[in-house]
Amino acid sequence: MAAEATPSFLYLPGLPAAGEELVLPEEEARYVTRVCRARAGECAQASDGRGALARLRLLEVRGGVRARVESREARARARVCHVLCGAPEGGRGDWLVEKLAELGVARFRPVECARGRWPAHGERLARWRRLAVAALRQSRSPHLMEVLEPTPLAEALAGLPPEANRWLADAEGPPADRAGLGETGMAAGLIGPSGGLAPDERQGALAGGFRPVRLAEARLRTETAALAWAALWAGSGSRPDRAV
Amino acid sequence: MAAEATPSFLYLPGLPAAGEELVLPEEEARYVTRVCRARAGECAQASDGRGALARLRLLEVRGGVRARVESREARARARVCHVLCGAPEGGRGDWLVEKLAELGVARFRPVECARGRWPAHGERLARWRRLAVAALRQSRSPHLMEVLEPTPLAEALAGLPPEANRWLADAEGPPADRAGLGETGMAAGLIGPSGGLAPDERQGALAGGFRPVRLAEARLRTETAALAWAALWAGSGSRPDRAV
Repeated sequence: MAAEATPSFLYLPGLPAAGEELVLPEEEARYVTRVCRARAGECAQASDGRGALARLRLLEVRGGVRARVESREARARARVCHVLCGAPEGGRGDWLVEKLAELGVARFRPVECARGRWPAHGERLARWRRLAVAALRQSRSPHLMEVLEPTPLAEALAGLPPEANRWLADAEGPPADRAGLGETGMAAGLIGPSGGLAPDERQGALAGGFRPVRLAEARLRTETAALAWAALWAGSGSRPDRAV
Repeated sequence: MAAEATPSFLYLPGLPAAGEELVLPEEEARYVTRVCRARAGECAQASDGRGALARLRLLEVRGGVRARVESREARARARVCHVLCGAPEGGRGDWLVEKLAELGVARFRPVECARGRWPAHGERLARWRRLAVAALRQSRSPHLMEVLEPTPLAEALAGLPPEANRWLADAEGPPADRAGLGETGMAAGLIGPSGGLAPDERQGALAGGFRPVRLAEARLRTETAALAWAALWAGSGSRPDRAV
């Protein structure tokens, strides 16, 4: 009845075209029936995580959930943000991933630095990707944050697109409001590990076009700096995704 | 020997005047000897959490830690920020307190709203205050974030200083970069609970001079919005505390 008020929001990487039907994968089916307690005939929203946003009609909810795509539109990100982040102190990666995804970061790339290594991952990467999916649902976003495996810093820097505006969280930099974060296009933020960047790593980043920016008056922990940078990025040029 | 490189940073609410001696309270004594492994003759920094920043010389570290205040200066906050925050979903208050303290927020006031109540506190408030002290040490700040008890929203709003610039985290507001967060003086940010502000609460805030500001393109969880707002505040007018 009140189904249109706050419809469920599903992550469906295999979202078909408008007019087609699909059977929901197990996790989304469980979410629709157990968490949202949706019934046949009700509506749901869905995204493929790559910019498609759809409206579904639930046709059947018992013994498997079947739905029809009633409409589907594509949205491009108005701006793109990558976060390259050194290892924070133990156990602080999970919520960092969740928050960066909510703020609309497109890609999270953990980087291995001389003074900070990410602990062995395996399970962790899978968990982070689940957190990114949960954030997509929470923020009803057409875009899924991509979570990459930890990469050596030099390799991560070499892999950045040439056109990216590069920012380095750095207590020696000018304050954020004078740094020009609100530019359009692609932004990449580099945050050192809890032990800080080594002098040669910092020099390398500056030589590679990274502009230092000071995020707060006091020293920030790695994960706080990553989040503060992403919040400044999100707030300094916030505008809706555009239809394509 | 290398003690001057990264001296310990202590929270001493009863910090005496320059030239005087003191015996460290138990928790700080343990921190100095066990965590920092400091020795007699070495130096430490300390703050009283109310703007005083001191340099201490450790005189004795066995069976109680005795120190002398070698120098002491007072710093005023260049800008003051209060965060009034509705209840997030369970268990997300701890890291919110830690992050707001790192970003330099002066006062954290949990507010009780129609659609969100903070769970019974007691132990929680004491834990939050310990987290604020840990953040002071971490960021070597002369100022301790004040953590207040949960207060009904109307009472919290009525208690704000008249001169405070008031901001409401609101998905309907203009983007943050056009909202003018970089003002000097005092800023107060209001963030609704996970269920959102009720319409009359929102209207009351707007009528009371709160300006809406949109923090990101997508919906943010309560704690993410509080942190994003504080990060924008911290970054949009960042400057060092001034000596007084």
